[in-house]
Amino acid sequence: MGWAIALHGGAGDISRGLPSERREPREAALRHCLQIGVAALKAKRSPLDVVELVVRELENEPNFNAGRGSVLTSKGTVEMEACIMDGNTKRCGAVSGLTTVVNAISLARLVMEKTPHIYLAFDGAEAFAREQGVETVDPGHFITPENIERLKQAIEANRVQIDYTPPIQKDDKKETPIADVDSQIGTVGCVAVDSHGNLAAATSTGGLVNKMVGRIGDTPIVGAGTYANSFCAVSATGKGEAIIRATIARDVAALMEYKGLSLKDAAAYVIQECAPKGTAGLVAVSATGEVTMPFNTTGMFRACAAEDGYSEIAIWPSV
Amino acid sequence: MGWAIALHGGAGDISRGLPSERREPREAALRHCLQIGVAALKAKRSPLDVVELVVRELENEPNFNAGRGSVLTSKGTVEMEACIMDGNTKRCGAVSGLTTVVNAISLARLVMEKTPHIYLAFDGAEAFAREQGVETVDPGHFITPENIERLKQAIEANRVQIDYTPPIQKDDKKETPIADVDSQIGTVGCVAVDSHGNLAAATSTGGLVNKMVGRIGDTPIVGAGTYANSFCAVSATGKGEAIIRATIARDVAALMEYKGLSLKDAAAYVIQECAPKGTAGLVAVSATGEVTMPFNTTGMFRACAAEDGYSEIAIWPSV
Repeated sequence: MGWAIALHGGAGDISRGLPSERREPREAALRHCLQIGVAALKAKRSPLDVVELVVRELENEPNFNAGRGSVLTSKGTVEMEACIMDGNTKRCGAVSGLTTVVNAISLARLVMEKTPHIYLAFDGAEAFAREQGVETVDPGHFITPENIERLKQAIEANRVQIDYTPPIQKDDKKETPIADVDSQIGTVGCVAVDSHGNLAAATSTGGLVNKMVGRIGDTPIVGAGTYANSFCAVSATGKGEAIIRATIARDVAALMEYKGLSLKDAAAYVIQECAPKGTAGLVAVSATGEVTMPFNTTGMFRACAAEDGYSEIAIWPSV
Repeated sequence: MGWAIALHGGAGDISRGLPSERREPREAALRHCLQIGVAALKAKRSPLDVVELVVRELENEPNFNAGRGSVLTSKGTVEMEACIMDGNTKRCGAVSGLTTVVNAISLARLVMEKTPHIYLAFDGAEAFAREQGVETVDPGHFITPENIERLKQAIEANRVQIDYTPPIQKDDKKETPIADVDSQIGTVGCVAVDSHGNLAAATSTGGLVNKMVGRIGDTPIVGAGTYANSFCAVSATGKGEAIIRATIARDVAALMEYKGLSLKDAAAYVIQECAPKGTAGLVAVSATGEVTMPFNTTGMFRACAAEDGYSEIAIWPSV
């Protein structure tokens, strides 16, 4: 027993050749967000507060695909989505199709706390944001030059990219195109447990590069990209469609609840057996303070810490 | 082993005093839709085709809360949603926020078959409907006088109603207000299995009376209102928020997959233990042709048939 926290900045095909000028800012952001989360847990903030706080920081970081830095739809627009869930009560809130809200995760929490509903989307979610007075900005705020280039490459290659898939290299050139390394960005998420076993999960994303307007992914879907109950809290990342089909976040918890597996075994089973290779990763913590961060992609930006002193910040599998 | 089919027209607080002029058209619609589904299964149509066909019929029936007959948002508008899922492949499609599409379930199937995505919502879903050339109509087509009255009563009572909750009676009068019996409408769904064990599920809804604009319920959420895999197919109905929190449809399948329960035991457990009383019902079939239709509400409009000759059309619990 003890507090624990884990967070991610997306899973995907992240080359080990990622140049240090691309790698280091992301590692620094993971470290910064982890420190914020650990400090909040030590200050006895609730896990729900902690995951919201950490995901807000990750949303504000333009090197990840959520909030500022969100990837673009096929029309060049931003449509952000997020979900937050409290383990003990299973209360949850979700939003999709946001275009002006600075911190989607906080609007998801307001849906949970201020409405009779769980999930608001598109114009209704934007109207609710205005009612609640959350911070909004011109949609241009979220759009980075890197994401304009990513969309251009995706449209030229006629494909919908998952988090981290490098653009197809034209002419079979072996050199890395400029945007290749820039495609290493992804969905963000955080899970936390306090020393009393209270759990919470939060996930936020801009979705897929070149996604159709109106596309909803796994992030806001309770049980797919985000889930927490009294056993564990889970935030997933990767190819949303694969994660939805495999109800990844719920299945980690269901394997603990219905099959008696440990957190690590449940999460490993889901990532190895339920999601196709190359499609998914997750971070999870259990009520007893275990942490696990498995993925079946080349890499996953991730970080964790626990009360027993264990801490890790990593991108690729440890050999 | 053998084919089986089950369908529902919503679960809720359905009084046994429901007048025959309100009851009989709904029973007739259930019978009609069941016959269509049985004939399609006997004609060797795929379960995916069968559930789509049956749900289209239910959507076209103004006495149920889907398609024509959809209940109204707090602004008096219609926002329909639907989901379809194939058990063997776990392929699925979902839509939300439709305002002009006559058959939401068929658009959900097109999302599954014609896009790289699973789930499209609001303007993007409407644009996709136009691209695909599906039948669309003026939104007024879906709005019935009964639903205008239901919304008026809900706004006066300042509440968001779940399927079938009769409006609060003003002044504690014991007489039934006109709209009380008219509130007995609900989400529709169908599940089917063929004699080879191929499974499919489909659900369609107008959501909750007086819901906020932009609200998404359980129906389009894979694992909540709709789910199918190689074990079973499930369509749920009731209070969407409770069904999302309890991941009801996935949990029926997860209890079979991870705990070895039979379909009936798994569904009974979920309805009795996982969803608060008065909030949920479901129809489900297993790969071996079992059928179950449990609910923890006063009643559920439901019908089923199986190759062994068993058939049932009912509203209240059998005593």
